[in-house]
Amino acid sequence: MSRLSLADVYRARQRIAGRALVTPLLQSVALSKVAGVAVYLKLETVQPTGSFKLRGATNALAQLADEGCKRVVTASTGNHGRAVAYAARALGIEAAVCMSSLVPRNKVDAVAALGARVVIVGKSQDDAQVEAQRLVREEGYAFVPPFDDPRVIAGQATIGIEILEALPDVATIVVPLSGGGLFSGVAFAAKSIARATEMVGVSMERGAAMHASLEAGRAVHVDELETLADSLGGGIGLDNRHTFDMTRELIDRVVLLDEVSIARGITHAYREERLVVEGAAAVGMAAVLDGAVRSQGPIVIVVSGCNIDIDTHRRLIGDA
Amino acid sequence: MSRLSLADVYRARQRIAGRALVTPLLQSVALSKVAGVAVYLKLETVQPTGSFKLRGATNALAQLADEGCKRVVTASTGNHGRAVAYAARALGIEAAVCMSSLVPRNKVDAVAALGARVVIVGKSQDDAQVEAQRLVREEGYAFVPPFDDPRVIAGQATIGIEILEALPDVATIVVPLSGGGLFSGVAFAAKSIARATEMVGVSMERGAAMHASLEAGRAVHVDELETLADSLGGGIGLDNRHTFDMTRELIDRVVLLDEVSIARGITHAYREERLVVEGAAAVGMAAVLDGAVRSQGPIVIVVSGCNIDIDTHRRLIGDA
Repeated sequence: MSRLSLADVYRARQRIAGRALVTPLLQSVALSKVAGVAVYLKLETVQPTGSFKLRGATNALAQLADEGCKRVVTASTGNHGRAVAYAARALGIEAAVCMSSLVPRNKVDAVAALGARVVIVGKSQDDAQVEAQRLVREEGYAFVPPFDDPRVIAGQATIGIEILEALPDVATIVVPLSGGGLFSGVAFAAKSIARATEMVGVSMERGAAMHASLEAGRAVHVDELETLADSLGGGIGLDNRHTFDMTRELIDRVVLLDEVSIARGITHAYREERLVVEGAAAVGMAAVLDGAVRSQGPIVIVVSGCNIDIDTHRRLIGDA
Repeated sequence: MSRLSLADVYRARQRIAGRALVTPLLQSVALSKVAGVAVYLKLETVQPTGSFKLRGATNALAQLADEGCKRVVTASTGNHGRAVAYAARALGIEAAVCMSSLVPRNKVDAVAALGARVVIVGKSQDDAQVEAQRLVREEGYAFVPPFDDPRVIAGQATIGIEILEALPDVATIVVPLSGGGLFSGVAFAAKSIARATEMVGVSMERGAAMHASLEAGRAVHVDELETLADSLGGGIGLDNRHTFDMTRELIDRVVLLDEVSIARGITHAYREERLVVEGAAAVGMAAVLDGAVRSQGPIVIVVSGCNIDIDTHRRLIGDA
């Protein structure tokens, strides 16, 4: 594991200042009642691109730009792709986002609207990944990984600093767990500042690659299954260099949720918190509602983003 | 008109710091496309009580507490009542909120949950008002007016400072217009800092008391009618001392909206901005969607709060 320092996180904070938001930390009356302790929500939903990913992408691109890089590429169609496109425009560099021809039109348009060059290639995410690597080899682009990158991790870690500054006596932080960029960043910052902070990672039962890898003691492949928490899907990379080791070292507990719980989290956010959240962002609230998170002190839940298909959202809150 | 100074607004900002949020200012991609200029949303929806009212209440109560006041009272069942209850608890003073016996249980509970003393009396808002005045006369409470008060106006005005700091080249600010506390505060701060800022007030067609008063040249009574923008209902007070004169002096244009437009604003906020907003908070977005706001430069819309009945909200977004 290449060592991240708290100084790296503070430098990340300086780099992203004015480009990504210092987000609100709000107490949830309803969840505090359920948990019996004060529960707070860290609202990454209000970031300009609708998710925390803007922090890591902005920190990585700002460093690349400082090093003279003029063009970056990624293969993500989701929150990371948006974040890279947005950060590139803000920093005045070029971004290419590679996608397969099967990616829905609205996702393509969202990235194109942010000024990125959209490269449509092949019929799978793997094909898009191969094209991104070709752009790196043959056209001088710098690749921006979605999570397994110290610059990206340091960007996400700024959330941890903000939480500890706003709420120094936080006892437990609950973070969506996927590739581990968000989790290991927040956990690293929080435990660096207050060692006793308990770190809980929450994933969906269906295809939780980091959980399976932690169980196996090494990065393993897990079949991706359909889930409401779709942003949490995908592998951690069999050649994982950073987030697996960091997560293994820093995590205190994993909670796995079924689809009913995730849907309940989305509906709770809408009805009680007046928040539109994606499935991945609802898992922390869902875990508290399920009674799966207990703490003797204040709990903070990272609410990671709002980019859910709006008709799916409307169906879920209508079913409730 | 008792004169407010920009120094009063900066002092208000110091008083409310750490108690009310500096809220995000986010660009709306969809509304920028409609308006042909950059359109930003000032998100008061993320204030701890779900509306901008926390700013004015906190500033007023902090001043009262400094003067040795131990007990405050108001008669609002809505955003102002919540804000007074919340601010009182934060400042360690007692709040009483007078309500009629017809106020729905959930509104009573929301105020009680914030630690306020709820006084149920009579069958109308007028009865509640009379009781509040009795508490002032006989029990030594200080009354906190919902809008027609320089301390309250100075608190709301902090929004204007935040907008001008974040976006110095703002050309037009669009503000929901009701009793005029929010409008005159934001307009005063904005025009004090940048005189050319255009100030647009938006009300519903049904029962717009400030608009009718501006037309009449004096505070007049208007029958209150049912509207989706219910927070904008109610009179400006026939004995209005501050907000009528300030609004008259500072307003450049009034836009009135029908109920269909307000519903469209609520639906737009949900579908395109991923925001749950109350009707009063949707009017600025609705005015832009209607083509009723044109500007040569950046537009900021104050999105004032999220406290809508959630079943009403679900019905509106379901009908769309």
